[in-house]
Amino acid sequence: MTEAGSLDIFLRGARAQVDEALERYLPRPPACPQVISDAMRYSVFAGGKRLRPTLTLAAADAVVRRAGRLPDGTELPAACAIELIHTYSLVHDDLPAMDNDTLRRGRPTLHVVYGDGLAILAGDGLQAEAFGLLVREPPTLDTDIQARKLRVLGVVAAAAGTGGLVGGQAVDLQAAGQGAAHTATLRAEDLRNMHASKTGALIRAAAVCGAIMAGGDDETVDVLDHYAADLGLAFQIVDDILDVEGNTAELGKTTGKDASGAKPTYPSLYGIERSRVLAADAASRAKQVIQAARLGHGWLAPIADWVVSRRN
Amino acid sequence: MTEAGSLDIFLRGARAQVDEALERYLPRPPACPQVISDAMRYSVFAGGKRLRPTLTLAAADAVVRRAGRLPDGTELPAACAIELIHTYSLVHDDLPAMDNDTLRRGRPTLHVVYGDGLAILAGDGLQAEAFGLLVREPPTLDTDIQARKLRVLGVVAAAAGTGGLVGGQAVDLQAAGQGAAHTATLRAEDLRNMHASKTGALIRAAAVCGAIMAGGDDETVDVLDHYAADLGLAFQIVDDILDVEGNTAELGKTTGKDASGAKPTYPSLYGIERSRVLAADAASRAKQVIQAARLGHGWLAPIADWVVSRRN
Repeated sequence: MTEAGSLDIFLRGARAQVDEALERYLPRPPACPQVISDAMRYSVFAGGKRLRPTLTLAAADAVVRRAGRLPDGTELPAACAIELIHTYSLVHDDLPAMDNDTLRRGRPTLHVVYGDGLAILAGDGLQAEAFGLLVREPPTLDTDIQARKLRVLGVVAAAAGTGGLVGGQAVDLQAAGQGAAHTATLRAEDLRNMHASKTGALIRAAAVCGAIMAGGDDETVDVLDHYAADLGLAFQIVDDILDVEGNTAELGKTTGKDASGAKPTYPSLYGIERSRVLAADAASRAKQVIQAARLGHGWLAPIADWVVSRRN
Repeated sequence: MTEAGSLDIFLRGARAQVDEALERYLPRPPACPQVISDAMRYSVFAGGKRLRPTLTLAAADAVVRRAGRLPDGTELPAACAIELIHTYSLVHDDLPAMDNDTLRRGRPTLHVVYGDGLAILAGDGLQAEAFGLLVREPPTLDTDIQARKLRVLGVVAAAAGTGGLVGGQAVDLQAAGQGAAHTATLRAEDLRNMHASKTGALIRAAAVCGAIMAGGDDETVDVLDHYAADLGLAFQIVDDILDVEGNTAELGKTTGKDASGAKPTYPSLYGIERSRVLAADAASRAKQVIQAARLGHGWLAPIADWVVSRRN
């Protein structure tokens, strides 16, 4: 079997496991009103790539594999919580007051179907459920696992908060408000910093939480953090390229939007060809750091290759 | 000194302690962008009553007082985190897509000053910071305190989530959308359930978290939960009465809005006089439950009296 074919099996398996767990973890009536359950599930089960939770599983797998142990599944709640945070951020980013997107993963965005008010609430609920899930699962009185859970809670809160997702989106919102005049003066460093918060922080958190729950030591956690920082950069650059080159049907979201909204992107700053090189370089660095730490025999390296070769 | 005068000293002291701690706990540049720091602080330091964090401090004080111990301050982060959750919920509830309020605590609401997009983000950020704060503070390697922190994190996540704040607001949003026709058929039980989630859950969490951090046993935590459930009910009924009777200048928010929006309220269902009796009964039950548990010598009983006698 080719490496790509083998990776495909892992990606599908991870997606299925995450979807099944999310279905169990998300609240249902009578624990919550029907309408908020429906709204949250509409966005959570919209057929996303599940990159972040897959990374959590792959990171945990690499750490236990190197230690000659078997995965114990304690990383699955962290994987799912991070996907809930990611989903909430998409729901809020799509709102008319933010990016005003009406199409996501080939379907109308949540606010188009349920209204802005309920979309705000569903996003708020997803964030709260993410933290609640991290506290509840896995249920344990083991003080080591409790300490890991607390550490993961801190990593996720930092990635979701004003130094991560929320901060990056605030900078993005301000940049978009300043329009084309801003783009012209936006430096490469600003672009990189914005994405580091807006996309990178949660991707890093995904890998880091996998390593923590798998019992990785500080050095291992640090390696996964570096790997994911470069992976996230590659992912973002490819996203920008696909936005220019792709078409709406293939990507399932409105394309060409970055340019029309005068948002800064890698292609607009560097051109397509140079952007491709930057993405490949970042993926290459990601692979090197895990190979140097003897964590290269699992799925982390193939995932880095997939991130730059993907077509959607 | 009268009991009311003495309570006033406690309330002012608690408010000052909470404000000072919030000032320390909230992120600042370079940990986050300036604009999101400014937006969060605009709403957090808008001169609220600080009922919830005060309850946390009073609950912890009552528990350690009964045990003949001194408070150790470990409840302060929980008090502040709950106030951040409360503030975020007000910011989002005030949005045009929700209650569309333009005045809060005597000042323009956050979205009026910073725009809807940044108000959504500031609310999102406050929620994330609340959980981050609960993880970070108090910094400790003590496994008992870590277990308490995890328990508090679970209580706050449940109160903030779809079974609490978010769920209650979703029901409220649906009821408002159905307008006057709905009010006519709304049963007293529905009204009580909506408020139990929307207001009650976080007020209960405030008292419960104080008891947990103070090392209270399960029975004590349960007593505080019952106390706060009745206190929250009394608080909500009085809020509804003040909305009918008060004026905008005194309350610092737009009054008469409940009736104009055809939202169900206690006065609209029971009339003013009967509503007053219901509030007094609830406060009385709250005092009885703590007195029966020998927790009546601190500030919890005077707070119950204050909640029904307050003018704003």
